[in-house]
Amino acid sequence: MLNKQIEKLWEEVREVSLGREIPQLKTPPTPLELLREYISPNKPCIISNSINHWPALSLWSSTPYLLTTLSSSPSVSLHLTPSGLADSLTPLSLQTPPPLCFASAHVDQLPFDKALSEVQESVKNKKVGYLQQQNDCFRSEYRGLEGDIEGDVPWASEAFGCLPEAVNIWVGNELSETSFHKDHYENMYAVVCGEKHFLLLPPTDVHRMYIRDYPAAQYRYSQDTGEFRLELEDPVRYVPWCSVNPYPSEMEKEKAVAEFPLYFNGPKPFEVTVKAGQMLYLPSMWFHHVRQTPDSRGLTVAINYWYDMKFDIKYAYFNFLQSLHWYSPKNSAFSHVRREDVFQGLRKYLEEEDLDISESSLEH
Amino acid sequence: MLNKQIEKLWEEVREVSLGREIPQLKTPPTPLELLREYISPNKPCIISNSINHWPALSLWSSTPYLLTTLSSSPSVSLHLTPSGLADSLTPLSLQTPPPLCFASAHVDQLPFDKALSEVQESVKNKKVGYLQQQNDCFRSEYRGLEGDIEGDVPWASEAFGCLPEAVNIWVGNELSETSFHKDHYENMYAVVCGEKHFLLLPPTDVHRMYIRDYPAAQYRYSQDTGEFRLELEDPVRYVPWCSVNPYPSEMEKEKAVAEFPLYFNGPKPFEVTVKAGQMLYLPSMWFHHVRQTPDSRGLTVAINYWYDMKFDIKYAYFNFLQSLHWYSPKNSAFSHVRREDVFQGLRKYLEEEDLDISESSLEH
Repeated sequence: MLNKQIEKLWEEVREVSLGREIPQLKTPPTPLELLREYISPNKPCIISNSINHWPALSLWSSTPYLLTTLSSSPSVSLHLTPSGLADSLTPLSLQTPPPLCFASAHVDQLPFDKALSEVQESVKNKKVGYLQQQNDCFRSEYRGLEGDIEGDVPWASEAFGCLPEAVNIWVGNELSETSFHKDHYENMYAVVCGEKHFLLLPPTDVHRMYIRDYPAAQYRYSQDTGEFRLELEDPVRYVPWCSVNPYPSEMEKEKAVAEFPLYFNGPKPFEVTVKAGQMLYLPSMWFHHVRQTPDSRGLTVAINYWYDMKFDIKYAYFNFLQSLHWYSPKNSAFSHVRREDVFQGLRKYLEEEDLDISESSLEH
Repeated sequence: MLNKQIEKLWEEVREVSLGREIPQLKTPPTPLELLREYISPNKPCIISNSINHWPALSLWSSTPYLLTTLSSSPSVSLHLTPSGLADSLTPLSLQTPPPLCFASAHVDQLPFDKALSEVQESVKNKKVGYLQQQNDCFRSEYRGLEGDIEGDVPWASEAFGCLPEAVNIWVGNELSETSFHKDHYENMYAVVCGEKHFLLLPPTDVHRMYIRDYPAAQYRYSQDTGEFRLELEDPVRYVPWCSVNPYPSEMEKEKAVAEFPLYFNGPKPFEVTVKAGQMLYLPSMWFHHVRQTPDSRGLTVAINYWYDMKFDIKYAYFNFLQSLHWYSPKNSAFSHVRREDVFQGLRKYLEEEDLDISESSLEH
């Protein structure tokens, strides 16, 4: 009964507000238009011709320019993973079913030139590098490039009524992928080199993401062995994360559809490609999955501005919606957190591996 | 279970966004501020010093001025009711419990001077007059006064991105009262003479209003008998309306609290008084109940501007919330439509009164 009403909500938000395509603006909106037509209704849009004046748009295509300009920077943050999937759900072992963990990348601090080679030589090295750190990294680690972009998006700052809380840079290759998640920020996302491919779902679709709690783990890369291993956090910390991989392999497809029917059988996610020189307004609380196509050098470079979101009636409605349990009588599956499954799988894993993480810390 | 989550929503929207008091602005906000701080989060505010320049503010306190200026107008709409309650729930008969109907006022078209006397002499005449008609009446029936106010609220029009869809005038006395309801419009409500007292509840609180379907009826006033009678519409038309009277008499109080516990025991409604010269931004979909205190002549005069609302994610969330049934196991009562009760009561009434409204039309 409740399920039908939730499914109707998915349709209605598309019918009354979102439509079926993300609007494309040929020029930047006025602050009032941005606020009225997009921020207030919590609706994404792509904006062209808003960053043409950034020197970055021509300068950053030159690797020598980047190397020279950042040669005096002490170091930048490099995220390393075996496959390009960071902050994603990864099997902890070969058990069936495998206990999944929320795996964060191994993070190194390196001079920019070394870090960039790691990104460009990811395939050869069998470890995938992604230059990023979502802690305002552009304004700290990349200060040398500050003159090449604007410190904020002026028309967006005026609309939001504040300056960005963080400015981040993302330098990746074709393997870098960000799994489905949402941020408690308003996001202005500008692509400088290459292309970014987003899958977007509105906050109303929260049940389709199968957000469940997963134990946090970190990749550790060993220079000696040239291997990654996954290390569970001790004490165990659970991270609520979206369970859906929207691009399962052909072999995994059937299983994925059976496991996450609300995602695969529900309304199609919005698909948008943001090209070099374009900006995406990605509204707060929207679920997004990101892949990329690099430029001829094999690099995708993007800048994003995080602005504080308003915790208003939309946020209250979202929390209410999320607190309701979508239950499928057919396969006896809840769409939400299933702590017990995760807990059982994890406990078995710890026993088999003879790991010294006390039970009590599992039960928080 | 669901009830607890709905009750949490009532609290959360107050905690994260609304607070406990309606904000008072000393000067009009910029269009951006209005949009960002109030329209987008769906949050009311009172604005002072925004209509000081309206000639109406001094001119309309003079009854002779109004009479002279409107002397050439053909007629205005006068709403007549026995008690001052129009568009309100009224017992159709003395049955116990009485079948309630949604009673609209008797509407007369009169020259302004005659209509105004009816408002001022309501108590003496035992019929309560209220000059109003929510169909853009100011711009049609009161054209003579158009120069005394502004055709729109310029900073609001800029924020909404459009001109008002309707401008209405309200001339009433201390008996005029508007029962709880919501409008699918954004509302800028300016008081020119006297005071208006609003009770406000956000759209999240929809279950606390006990919206149920009532058969529509109209008051008919007979000059001959000097009496009102209530006439059911034929065929029967059901109107969904809020069941709660927030000001029950001392005698009715206990019954009201028992019947509408979600209203009386839940978070207090926001109470605001809008004084002459002030404006209320009343956001779309907010439930409001209105009473008034007249000026020394016994009149309250107000103007309201209806702007089109955006049907966005908030609207979709609201419809979803409203589609969920709040059920109280304790008193076996739903908060929503109880068609069967209404239907039974109405049928009994029709039988007893021997009224010729066919059964089939009741069953729509």
